[in-house]
Amino acid sequence: MENQRPLILVSNDDGIISKGISELVKFLRTLGEVVVMAPDTPRSGAACALTTNEPIHYQLLRKDVGVTVYKCSGTPTDCVKLALHTVLGERRPDLIVAGINHGDNSSVNVHYSGTMGVVIEGCLKGIPSIGFSLCNHQPDADFEACGPYVRQIVSAVLEKGLPPLTCLNVNFPNTRELKGIRICEQAKGQWENEWENFAHRGDAHYYWMTGEFRDTDADNERNDHWALANGYVAVTPVTVDVTAYGLLKEMKDWFPVNEE
Amino acid sequence: MENQRPLILVSNDDGIISKGISELVKFLRTLGEVVVMAPDTPRSGAACALTTNEPIHYQLLRKDVGVTVYKCSGTPTDCVKLALHTVLGERRPDLIVAGINHGDNSSVNVHYSGTMGVVIEGCLKGIPSIGFSLCNHQPDADFEACGPYVRQIVSAVLEKGLPPLTCLNVNFPNTRELKGIRICEQAKGQWENEWENFAHRGDAHYYWMTGEFRDTDADNERNDHWALANGYVAVTPVTVDVTAYGLLKEMKDWFPVNEE
Repeated sequence: MENQRPLILVSNDDGIISKGISELVKFLRTLGEVVVMAPDTPRSGAACALTTNEPIHYQLLRKDVGVTVYKCSGTPTDCVKLALHTVLGERRPDLIVAGINHGDNSSVNVHYSGTMGVVIEGCLKGIPSIGFSLCNHQPDADFEACGPYVRQIVSAVLEKGLPPLTCLNVNFPNTRELKGIRICEQAKGQWENEWENFAHRGDAHYYWMTGEFRDTDADNERNDHWALANGYVAVTPVTVDVTAYGLLKEMKDWFPVNEE
Repeated sequence: MENQRPLILVSNDDGIISKGISELVKFLRTLGEVVVMAPDTPRSGAACALTTNEPIHYQLLRKDVGVTVYKCSGTPTDCVKLALHTVLGERRPDLIVAGINHGDNSSVNVHYSGTMGVVIEGCLKGIPSIGFSLCNHQPDADFEACGPYVRQIVSAVLEKGLPPLTCLNVNFPNTRELKGIRICEQAKGQWENEWENFAHRGDAHYYWMTGEFRDTDADNERNDHWALANGYVAVTPVTVDVTAYGLLKEMKDWFPVNEE
């Protein structure tokens, strides 16, 4: 029967030793067979980055009943690509799950997130994929309240699948009093005051990344940032077809001479 | 009058010493005042990655009439964020341009591309942004045929702007015989056979990234990969709002108990 259980590939961007990925595996292991391949060092903010200019490597860390764990020197996206190519061999996972991230990946953070790098890669490979993130950066963040929702959402996707080119970005507010799930749109907004002047040395100016997020659409109850601010689990469906269809027709009038 | 010329911020992912960015600056300098801040090393495949775990630094390299050049130790996305925060000061660029990339950024490559990392960051900051790429990876690629199209597209965007949350991904086929511009959708497709077994050392398995792109929608004349294969300049409008709106309504029925 073991082989009939769903196969779930897990990765993240905080690295293999983070609490968030251990908690995620704990929540998932009764739902299927779990294979983890995660970065050997923290890779927050890795987005969909690839390692193109040097080889990467992976190693088996441990194999328990239903859970096999590998570490990988590559990015989160590399981890997915390499696991599919090597340790999973002919077996195609039923689901790819990333997280649980230590920190908020709602709104524009979807573009910078290595957690969502995992998810986007899974989606591009045609495999249903979900990223989970908690709005708490601390290494010892409390993920306990996320458990029932992780299991509910994963079970739903295992049962129903996801349409082609779509995946899920799930964010939890940092509270034990979760009010339930809201299906959300990506909030509009942007990061401001993003750099702290760190030092000058000769002609070189050093800066450290910091920043404050400004929600430019704060009263919009449809968006994920609003849901988090109001105690809901924010489930944002994400597309990997980033064509701006709205602009397609308009732009065809811009260069009329060149169109056949 | 100098101050009334458009201000154009330029970056890339191949790094400050690549031929592609020099050619781009050559094509742009008569259209406006150009400020370059580009990575000091190659950053291909950087996507929208950020440097979050160490400080980054920038340095002035040279200042000519109408062209000022800085190098930066960060990612392509860092370059945009840092230039806006530091060397541009109170001045907001009229346009952000990335490239010209040595290599194809059409189809799913939009997700991995550091060139498009520059463009997406500009777009998230509300500044019209365009990425240019040539389907030729060679360091001495011939960009000459791109020039008139770069200038035509940049001029059009300086005149008309771009709608909020949208930017452009422009790809050139590797030919001097360009057939004109086509406004395209992002091609469906995926990378396969992505890893070359490089070595084993102890328990560690080393792999080098490689791969072949398979266009799963090859006959679709609307897509950017088709346009490139047929000698056209592919202009793909891209959105940074990645909400899968098509799935929003359907998903609301998945978790009815939790909705208020």
